[in-house]
Amino acid sequence: MKYKKELEEAHFRISPYIHRTEVMQSRLINSIAKCEVFFKCENFQKMGAFKMRGACNAILQLSEEERANGVITHSSGNMAQAVSLAARQLDVKAYIVMPSNAPDVKKAAVRDYGGEITECIPTIQEREKTCNAIIEKTGASFIHPSNNLNVILGQGTAAKELLIDYTDLDVVLTPVGGGGLLAGTAIACAHRNTLCIAGEPMNADDAYRSLKSGKIEMNETADTIADGLRTHLGDINFPIIQEHVSEIIRVEESEIIQAMRLIWERMKIIIEPSCAVPFAAVLKEPAKFEGKKVGIIITGGNVDLSKLPF
Amino acid sequence: MKYKKELEEAHFRISPYIHRTEVMQSRLINSIAKCEVFFKCENFQKMGAFKMRGACNAILQLSEEERANGVITHSSGNMAQAVSLAARQLDVKAYIVMPSNAPDVKKAAVRDYGGEITECIPTIQEREKTCNAIIEKTGASFIHPSNNLNVILGQGTAAKELLIDYTDLDVVLTPVGGGGLLAGTAIACAHRNTLCIAGEPMNADDAYRSLKSGKIEMNETADTIADGLRTHLGDINFPIIQEHVSEIIRVEESEIIQAMRLIWERMKIIIEPSCAVPFAAVLKEPAKFEGKKVGIIITGGNVDLSKLPF
Repeated sequence: MKYKKELEEAHFRISPYIHRTEVMQSRLINSIAKCEVFFKCENFQKMGAFKMRGACNAILQLSEEERANGVITHSSGNMAQAVSLAARQLDVKAYIVMPSNAPDVKKAAVRDYGGEITECIPTIQEREKTCNAIIEKTGASFIHPSNNLNVILGQGTAAKELLIDYTDLDVVLTPVGGGGLLAGTAIACAHRNTLCIAGEPMNADDAYRSLKSGKIEMNETADTIADGLRTHLGDINFPIIQEHVSEIIRVEESEIIQAMRLIWERMKIIIEPSCAVPFAAVLKEPAKFEGKKVGIIITGGNVDLSKLPF
Repeated sequence: MKYKKELEEAHFRISPYIHRTEVMQSRLINSIAKCEVFFKCENFQKMGAFKMRGACNAILQLSEEERANGVITHSSGNMAQAVSLAARQLDVKAYIVMPSNAPDVKKAAVRDYGGEITECIPTIQEREKTCNAIIEKTGASFIHPSNNLNVILGQGTAAKELLIDYTDLDVVLTPVGGGGLLAGTAIACAHRNTLCIAGEPMNADDAYRSLKSGKIEMNETADTIADGLRTHLGDINFPIIQEHVSEIIRVEESEIIQAMRLIWERMKIIIEPSCAVPFAAVLKEPAKFEGKKVGIIITGGNVDLSKLPF
């Protein structure tokens, strides 16, 4: 099967550099959701999100020569931190292009992890222009946050671990933003004949529309609290998603906030709004999940505590 | 040694009814605190706090006849939920006297767990009066939240588990409010020749003053965010604390909030302000803990998300 060996190798490759995160369950959550939910807690991953997996795998696949010139990514969020920390662990220089309006807490975290920040005007065109200028100057290798096969395979290792620990899951859900985690999870699920479903904010439903239309759709606006999910799919992850993802369930903002609050209050763990999206999808369509064993990738826990929706 | 057998028996007795909670560590926290910190996560305990342990042990020690008449406690917080849930698990009726100004979220939780709430004017005299009236009418057994030997021994099982999992800790810290957890922890530590230290809010430092004066002191005011720590010691737990607790470190409100935020942000777990008090103590007196192996009982995670101090 496609990418089976590659996923195995990615998992073996990154294992020394990541946490094997725990899987949490809650009887209260199960009774509310009317199914058995297994939360793969990537909020406890190094730097607080699954992105660490993809960043490690991508950097580990570079040659010695490439590593010597450093790596670069553009991100306002977790991928910036992930590339910074993964690079530092591997003694590689990291250049991070961040929009000038990125939260201070995220900029500080990138600096803590040793990433060198270049700020740019917050448009995708400016991001790419700034990136390209740095690449031209330094020869750094660009690591796309989601549309890079090594990143996708790295992200897929979270679901792989979950399906090793719990071999009888009926379905695994992730949120979908740029599509890297979803594509990687879909690969891991396909190898196990497990369904893969995504949750997506109604207000940024480009992936849902892409699956319907058969081509990559964009968001005209993306006004969602799930700030990790405002991006669109790419030409590398989209075909994988088309082949292996059975459904994308869209949820409203109020449903995301309610699901997030339920996890905070009942499970006592801090998760980002984006992670609440697949759980909100489970709560929204109970008939689809009733009595099933449901895996959910809790993608991260990097939240600005000064700006909570409660 | 005193209470060694009793603590063993309490642990054996309550084990079927509680979670054996995990112990978490964080390299970031360790590097900030300059010591190795082992957090015993009672925020993941049933009903979200260590109080479940004491409540179970106390109810399990009642006779069949006593159980038939139910149990009663007065509490504005976690003990109300703990007695309700422990009683329900053991098929015992629970009467809970709560001050009329207790948070709605706490009242709702008590009702969810099947506790029958009687509200009273929020003074200690009115609490006791209301309690006594119900006891007279029903014959229910009173379970004091902290000044009851079976409760104390139940609370001590958290530190017992921590010291089984990590046999080489130099010190275990808890917060001190009513003194039940601290006394139980002190017993568990004494059996292992491990130091036991408490953290206490400067604004409710009755236990600190009690250790100094040799008699139980009260708080004239108790204006602290650590709402679980506003109460005073009792005649059963105080002698145990006097004998086995080596020190009480006092911390300011700003230090509590900073320590709480650090745990939320770095460890991605939700803890009550009270739990942050011993960690704040470690941060406040680094020379005392540098290079040591430090256990901290994270007491609970029941927080009103609408009222965060960040």
